[in-house]
Amino acid sequence: MPEPTTITAAAGFIRTGDLTPVELLDQCVARIERYEDRVHAWAYLDLEGAREQAERLTAELKTGQNRGPLHGVPVGIKDIIDVFDMPTGCGSKGWANSYARRDATCVERLRQSGAIILGKTVTTAYASFDPPVTRNPWNLDRTPGGSSSGSAAAVACGMCLGALASQTGGSITRPASYCGVYSIKPTYRRVSVDGVLPLAPSLDHVGAMANCVRDLAILLQPLARTNDDPKDSPPVPYHYESELSNEMYHDRRRRLSLLPGFPATAVPEMNTAIATLRKRTDSSLPERTETNRWEWNELPLPPSFSDVPRFQHLIMAVEAAAYHGERMRRHPDDYPPNVRRLIEMGLSTPAPQYVRAKQLMEHYREESEPAFVDNWRTFLTPAATGPAPSAETTGSPAFNSPWSYTGLPTVSLPVAWTADGLPLAVQLTGERWCEDDLLAVAAMLEADIGFERRPLPL
Amino acid sequence: MPEPTTITAAAGFIRTGDLTPVELLDQCVARIERYEDRVHAWAYLDLEGAREQAERLTAELKTGQNRGPLHGVPVGIKDIIDVFDMPTGCGSKGWANSYARRDATCVERLRQSGAIILGKTVTTAYASFDPPVTRNPWNLDRTPGGSSSGSAAAVACGMCLGALASQTGGSITRPASYCGVYSIKPTYRRVSVDGVLPLAPSLDHVGAMANCVRDLAILLQPLARTNDDPKDSPPVPYHYESELSNEMYHDRRRRLSLLPGFPATAVPEMNTAIATLRKRTDSSLPERTETNRWEWNELPLPPSFSDVPRFQHLIMAVEAAAYHGERMRRHPDDYPPNVRRLIEMGLSTPAPQYVRAKQLMEHYREESEPAFVDNWRTFLTPAATGPAPSAETTGSPAFNSPWSYTGLPTVSLPVAWTADGLPLAVQLTGERWCEDDLLAVAAMLEADIGFERRPLPL
Repeated sequence: MPEPTTITAAAGFIRTGDLTPVELLDQCVARIERYEDRVHAWAYLDLEGAREQAERLTAELKTGQNRGPLHGVPVGIKDIIDVFDMPTGCGSKGWANSYARRDATCVERLRQSGAIILGKTVTTAYASFDPPVTRNPWNLDRTPGGSSSGSAAAVACGMCLGALASQTGGSITRPASYCGVYSIKPTYRRVSVDGVLPLAPSLDHVGAMANCVRDLAILLQPLARTNDDPKDSPPVPYHYESELSNEMYHDRRRRLSLLPGFPATAVPEMNTAIATLRKRTDSSLPERTETNRWEWNELPLPPSFSDVPRFQHLIMAVEAAAYHGERMRRHPDDYPPNVRRLIEMGLSTPAPQYVRAKQLMEHYREESEPAFVDNWRTFLTPAATGPAPSAETTGSPAFNSPWSYTGLPTVSLPVAWTADGLPLAVQLTGERWCEDDLLAVAAMLEADIGFERRPLPL
Repeated sequence: MPEPTTITAAAGFIRTGDLTPVELLDQCVARIERYEDRVHAWAYLDLEGAREQAERLTAELKTGQNRGPLHGVPVGIKDIIDVFDMPTGCGSKGWANSYARRDATCVERLRQSGAIILGKTVTTAYASFDPPVTRNPWNLDRTPGGSSSGSAAAVACGMCLGALASQTGGSITRPASYCGVYSIKPTYRRVSVDGVLPLAPSLDHVGAMANCVRDLAILLQPLARTNDDPKDSPPVPYHYESELSNEMYHDRRRRLSLLPGFPATAVPEMNTAIATLRKRTDSSLPERTETNRWEWNELPLPPSFSDVPRFQHLIMAVEAAAYHGERMRRHPDDYPPNVRRLIEMGLSTPAPQYVRAKQLMEHYREESEPAFVDNWRTFLTPAATGPAPSAETTGSPAFNSPWSYTGLPTVSLPVAWTADGLPLAVQLTGERWCEDDLLAVAAMLEADIGFERRPLPL
């Protein structure tokens, strides 16, 4: 029996009848049984409910109905996102048994597309920075990153083939990067946050993780908003998966811009990995052919970009304080130190500073995108400062938070291994609303660099 | 120190400084301490939080800020309505610790108006028909009615001066009637149901209870929707409280229509009470003056009205099954017998029957309001079949469910006592969106009949 680890492969086997949703679920459950006691990716599991969903979806296939590539695919949902009649624990003690009375919009969309909701994946407390119980499956002493810790670890272990995650600073890209999985943080507002615990509404994004770029396109498709509020709706989403093989733009898409002035610093290993990537794909190399040569350049960032990380953090702190401040005062024991510090910072921030931070944000989001020059539409930056650090932290969001602030879409993908066997990833940033372009670029890069997947050392 | 039992009176004392929000809260808390162990009106109380709110609102007054008549008024919220960081228990065992991550829209509006959220009032399981723990304060062997059992009992005891309630069949009017308090079920869609557990979305209404008609106007004001969805918004609400004293329409408003063909039967005591009411207010009586004479007539109902109770029940059953069916299958122990029967009925209802029931409903809601003739704009019917029955039931919604179905606004008010000291109430039904008219009629009736309030027998 085939044992696919990507949604793309699973959908193929399910389509041809070589695998049923029930069999696919059994494989995921077997991996949960094998790894979960060491990895702790799940806050809540509903294996009985998942089995019923799998049986129903298997029966549907027998009647000839196939809902598409997510039909029968087990997914995990970050535990700040509502799933009907599962608790939305939010990494909180007080809310640990808060059953949701309905699905969040994003969950409802996945369910309608045939995904099997396996359970809730561990989040750091309130999607902030305090180390969670989850461990990095590539090294149990390391952090999986945060705040979407469980989603990244579960996908890395194949406990589920895709997962929903969310990002306010670097909570999608960073854990995906540390765990060696692929991620997409769509454009701000592309995916509804209805039914999702807010951390900072101006910055909160829902996104997804999986084991290849095509899987991200498949997951984004039902999530992308089309009709919530007609007067305020983002541009209509493309059919992302077919856009991956749209050859019309391939030349234009094989162009990557580095951002030398980026206000964050990576470890030497990460810089080496990117330099190697550039060396191996550069169009000036004789061995690159017409169809796989990449052009690289370096783009200057506007001077104001150096304010971005600080402003992002300020907005996050202030809006987190607006939501949590009163509750933290009443239930201090339910706020671990890092989120407490964030909220305290927010509580003591003078409002005019917040106004200025928001003004620059609006400038970046609406008035100008000065860095997109001609057809240089994709930035490449490290997905994190380096490999996963110790489990006493959740790592630094320094390379991600600017994209939460600008709201530009990002895709991250693993590109190399450190000497001690930890994955390193890069992050591509695209134009607002152009997740189609961005995913196509990412898929071509994925294909051209031939990243070597490894078995888990567990 | 004054001890007001209405919002109107409390607002007056707070305005003049004769009473502070903290003192008013203390009075409510004293009544909770006195009655709650026998009445069981509350599913959750946050006395510490209420005290903080009261202190803040007392301090606001000292700076000259008065938010209006709800400033510092303790209210109860039916336990199917979300209040931030209180559980929304829904009368369910499984959901008993489901803390809400935000206020329902209706709660947010009350809070902004200065109301103090005291806690959550007992609901029957899932706002259906199973007898709750709450007892009727006029006779502890009787039911307070359902499903807004705790709201009615708490207001009757003065544990809070107003409460939010909800109605799908007769869940606002019936308990208010049994407990001798005043209630409003506004026009369908007048008050947002965002953040409220659905029972049957086509029929679900949020409304309020209090101790006089003017209090209902005060409570409705912030709740009435104005701006949720501009293209689909109800007519702009009036300023209900000032409309009460708009003398321009008084003549036209002192007209009540009885509905002889109404498809429900009341006990003789109730019919006597209404006959007495008519006799005492009829314009033909010599002792009635120009300013307090009422005209009465009898209006025929259209023949299709006889289908209404059955169709209302069918829609409720089907939509409850759509929401709860799957969960009941998985958690049968969390569904007591009456709601179980309702859901089972829904599950076994052929869909075309539902379509026909909805079609007649749309007809009543949109196409015609044949019974409103000339200036005969207010119907008077019993608010319940009689006084509160034994605590083994929650009573019959027969007089109320047609108004949930047609969506017309209703106000109920106590008008008489039975020989053994239980309140009897009538229900006024008005034109769609015309809660202003309806409240004005109810206030005039309240003033003219001089209903004698009694002390609780507890």
